[in-house]
Amino acid sequence: MVTGSCSGGARAVARCDQLGLAPYSDMMGGLYRAYLTPAHRATVDQVGGWMFEAGMSARIDPAGNLVGHYPGARSDAPALIIGSHLDSVRDGGCYDGPLGVMLGIECVAALHAAGRRLPFAIDVYGFGDEEGSRFPAAMLSSRAVAGTLDVDLMTIADTHGVPLADALRDFNAADDDEGVMQILETAPLGIAGFHKARRRTGHVLAYLEAHIEQGPALEADGLAVGTVTGIAAQLRYRVVVTGMAGHAGTTTMRLRRDPLAGAAAMVLSVEQLARADNSDVVATVGMIEALPGAPNVIPGEVRFTIDVRSGVETRRDTVAEQILDRIVEIADARDLDFAIERIHDLPASPCDAALMDLMDAALVAAGQSPRRLVSGAGHDAMNMAALCPTAMLFIRCKGGISHNPAEHVDPADADIALQVMLGFIERLAAKHA
Amino acid sequence: MVTGSCSGGARAVARCDQLGLAPYSDMMGGLYRAYLTPAHRATVDQVGGWMFEAGMSARIDPAGNLVGHYPGARSDAPALIIGSHLDSVRDGGCYDGPLGVMLGIECVAALHAAGRRLPFAIDVYGFGDEEGSRFPAAMLSSRAVAGTLDVDLMTIADTHGVPLADALRDFNAADDDEGVMQILETAPLGIAGFHKARRRTGHVLAYLEAHIEQGPALEADGLAVGTVTGIAAQLRYRVVVTGMAGHAGTTTMRLRRDPLAGAAAMVLSVEQLARADNSDVVATVGMIEALPGAPNVIPGEVRFTIDVRSGVETRRDTVAEQILDRIVEIADARDLDFAIERIHDLPASPCDAALMDLMDAALVAAGQSPRRLVSGAGHDAMNMAALCPTAMLFIRCKGGISHNPAEHVDPADADIALQVMLGFIERLAAKHA
Repeated sequence: MVTGSCSGGARAVARCDQLGLAPYSDMMGGLYRAYLTPAHRATVDQVGGWMFEAGMSARIDPAGNLVGHYPGARSDAPALIIGSHLDSVRDGGCYDGPLGVMLGIECVAALHAAGRRLPFAIDVYGFGDEEGSRFPAAMLSSRAVAGTLDVDLMTIADTHGVPLADALRDFNAADDDEGVMQILETAPLGIAGFHKARRRTGHVLAYLEAHIEQGPALEADGLAVGTVTGIAAQLRYRVVVTGMAGHAGTTTMRLRRDPLAGAAAMVLSVEQLARADNSDVVATVGMIEALPGAPNVIPGEVRFTIDVRSGVETRRDTVAEQILDRIVEIADARDLDFAIERIHDLPASPCDAALMDLMDAALVAAGQSPRRLVSGAGHDAMNMAALCPTAMLFIRCKGGISHNPAEHVDPADADIALQVMLGFIERLAAKHA
Repeated sequence: MVTGSCSGGARAVARCDQLGLAPYSDMMGGLYRAYLTPAHRATVDQVGGWMFEAGMSARIDPAGNLVGHYPGARSDAPALIIGSHLDSVRDGGCYDGPLGVMLGIECVAALHAAGRRLPFAIDVYGFGDEEGSRFPAAMLSSRAVAGTLDVDLMTIADTHGVPLADALRDFNAADDDEGVMQILETAPLGIAGFHKARRRTGHVLAYLEAHIEQGPALEADGLAVGTVTGIAAQLRYRVVVTGMAGHAGTTTMRLRRDPLAGAAAMVLSVEQLARADNSDVVATVGMIEALPGAPNVIPGEVRFTIDVRSGVETRRDTVAEQILDRIVEIADARDLDFAIERIHDLPASPCDAALMDLMDAALVAAGQSPRRLVSGAGHDAMNMAALCPTAMLFIRCKGGISHNPAEHVDPADADIALQVMLGFIERLAAKHA
């Protein structure tokens, strides 16, 4: 059985650090790597070089994804895709996305160093867009690979008015330079070929993604890694509570219909009901606004959002219904009017049960306590689930912080993740031998 | 005993309505009458004409106040000042301020029609600025009359950079035109003379102000008018609650330090503690903001304001202390940090006890149930209290609405107010006979 070098995970972390600065960032003094920008191109060229060193061929697919290929034992072998994204949010962290790509490369490097061929090929994907980092749509490139991309999205433009088609053309044209880029085959098909990034169902065995947790659960339990059970189902509401605006000095307490006091009771019930479910359900009020918004005026209207998530849709829906019922009760008791609009409803994307078992076994073999947790955030895996069974491994990140320059991963944790991923791959190989 | 014509109050209301449009407003399609603007000048000229018709001489004092004078029985008689303000907030209502001036004129009109001279003169003031309608300071003109104006305020300018001195000069220069303005003596002393608007202590017997309630208490009790016990003491705080920002999807409920949930509990306690005091204490959260403020992010910081008022300072302070104690408890229980800044502390300005008794007697004589209530809002009376004993009469306004075009006063209520004011004047005259 192949195990990674004891420093493979640490190297993956170091490479993420290296990619956190110019020329791999579009902003000075921080990391912002947007889809199809010069920083993205420089990153693809650099990471393509690392793929090559690891024993892979590398290409840029028609959606701007970097794809490293490590052949299987037989030429007609299906592929295991290991991937994550290379783009980042503005002023983001170095590990959200790239760490999964770097660990995929380390897996292949270890297998290649051992001369190991598997009953499946490994394709390492560095997806171009997951964060919606440049265009007003997220996860464009994993949706292209999974074949679930809406054709209408091909006409979108960035905030400067540059159409996706032009950005894609410029990205591919950058390949004329000298250096490591020459090792990359590119597919300058332009927008018409964007959909050619699609992989054929049946030829992809599974999708494996390692990603930082972006939450504090593993850290709280003292664990380096955990098996992801799926991407949580999301519901999002916009709530408007209307009462009676008034002078803060002249309106006696008993005559008030204060929508902010009502909204406060609602915010507390959101927290209380999610807690009371004592499950993976999370519910959050992230935005609140009181109008007209002056210290000496009782608000007439309050607006806030509610975000409810769970790995299990029915559980999410149960808590969401409890919250909405409570809002009705509170509004009735306080003689307030309200309007609730559902603005977002994303189904759950469960990871494959058999692959979760393989992951748990790999965790135990690597000396780790198995721990399953749901992903509250969306990941490329949720799109890849339309193509093949998916598996995800979460890696502890300091303080649960992400989308922030303070994002931090312990290299020792990345080493553990690498061992678990290799164990997962060997177990998958044994199953398909 | 002189009583007003049965329609004197209704005429006062109609005059307020007339002043709600051009040329008495600085904005189209609504009322905004700011201090020392063309609309203010047109208003002063028009109201000065009404003063003249009512049997008064009229002048503009050095602070831009319109002053009508009705002499007493003896030339050395002290004065009863009846006043309120002529300016308005932007897109305000017609009665907040002007109604008190118009009712003062009606009082004199009734006395003059009856040939009645009193042991005191009556000076009817139309204060130029109460709302802070133009300059970054409120109640400039009643403070000038009371002699409590800070000299530093003389250097202020409006949002267009026009200094108060220039505005005052232009206001006085407008007097060169023809028409009713000619009846007004003006005092074009400019900024240097602003303080000459001050009235001498001892020469002013009392100050009487009628004003719309700006709250719903009288309406709720089915009363047209009420005796004001004083201007409430105000405290205002700015509160910042800090927790831990996080991803709304990835941060489990038990690991959250959500400052918005904490702030919601604090907002509820503000309401609850003010209610529990079961007195005239009012407490309001009018502004709230959650940062960074995205539906999918647990806020890291929440900012809100607290406004606490009562006619009795100690009562206000007791409730404010209870609120601050509760904030500490909530923050401790939730492991949140907080900072509280006191940004405003205005002492109570009680009305004169003997004058309140006169007002109650006048109320009963006019067939009204006596009702005392505190003013949660500030009024010119609070400044005049530095000069002489003060009395205030509140008039019911529809829905408690003010600072809004929907502000409404029933003319019948204004008629009642006029009878009460005349009764008050007669009782004051009897006392000083």
